Amino acid sequence: MNRPQSIERMIEIIKRMPGIGPKMAERLSYHILKMSENEVSRLVDSILKARQTMKSCSICYNLSEHDPCPVCSDSARDRNIVCVVETPQDLIAVSKVKDYKGLYFVLGGALSPLDAIGPDDIRIDNLIKRLKSDSISEVIIATDADSKGEMTAVYLAEIIKKLGIKVTRLGYGLPVGGDIEYADEVTISRAIAGRKEM
Amino acid sequence: MNRPQSIERMIEIIKRMPGIGPKMAERLSYHILKMSENEVSRLVDSILKARQTMKSCSICYNLSEHDPCPVCSDSARDRNIVCVVETPQDLIAVSKVKDYKGLYFVLGGALSPLDAIGPDDIRIDNLIKRLKSDSISEVIIATDADSKGEMTAVYLAEIIKKLGIKVTRLGYGLPVGGDIEYADEVTISRAIAGRKEM
Repeated sequence: MNRPQSIERMIEIIKRMPGIGPKMAERLSYHILKMSENEVSRLVDSILKARQTMKSCSICYNLSEHDPCPVCSDSARDRNIVCVVETPQDLIAVSKVKDYKGLYFVLGGALSPLDAIGPDDIRIDNLIKRLKSDSISEVIIATDADSKGEMTAVYLAEIIKKLGIKVTRLGYGLPVGGDIEYADEVTISRAIAGRKEM
Repeated sequence: MNRPQSIERMIEIIKRMPGIGPKMAERLSYHILKMSENEVSRLVDSILKARQTMKSCSICYNLSEHDPCPVCSDSARDRNIVCVVETPQDLIAVSKVKDYKGLYFVLGGALSPLDAIGPDDIRIDNLIKRLKSDSISEVIIATDADSKGEMTAVYLAEIIKKLGIKVTRLGYGLPVGGDIEYADEVTISRAIAGRKEM
């Protein structure tokens, strides 16, 4: 027996989500078929509701129920410093660090020549425009510590320095609580380069 | 900044799905927010459509768009032999084996005292009723090869034998194409016990 067509279709669509393989898509689909009517409406409603209420902040491109977002409209924040992140998730992660009181900018990704993602595919122009119009004294680049994030940081730093704005990058090193035994060579070499006198 | 409430809610609900951890739920949720209007309706529609059209076959409890399902209503099949599986997914897997021409019965799970799943929580009564009313000469038990599946098989075999029906269990051994080096001890010991003369 082949799988019924409507299950096949649901699996096919769920399989396209990031990080979901064919087996996982199958498991989720059959689980959805076993869920109660109530649970299914809660799932579907939560998706539609989030889609309806979420907007992109017109200043920093953070996802928020309001525009400008709560961060950009918070008058207690230092408006002279901007932290550039790749995604709204990264913004949430950085914002958990209470000592950073500046603003943000969400690029919407990182440069990736292999995936044909160039400077026009992420919000580099919007960032430059904002840096030119607002009085920003420092940009902290907090792109991911992988090769794409690194490439994006280098690319941005070059452009931003020309605007006469100080550019910094998050420090590299051992993750706090990390075991040296399990750290990779590159991380250790960065940690040595970034060593501090005690 | 905290995550907007409607994203938080979507993550919360997606996290309840099997095999989805908090990080994965977050990733999927943000992906859903980035999908096009069209993709989201396709996702939601496929879920609702599958829920609407899928029924449980009243004979074997297979999931199907028809009742009885295509297997039970296929007159070319041997109606004297029933293969008992745990889930509709297992039925699909067994049905790919072209030489099996009998019918099926979907238990809807396996016995699992630790999860408080006893004989009344899976379709053992329905199976016995069916075996009593139809003229079945053999039941092949194809529950999973784990401890729950094994326990269920032993429990079923005892009851079914009392009805004067032959009970068999899928053979254990090395998976075809499997490397002995990576097989666990229990599998190897079963493979030795089930060795065949060449």
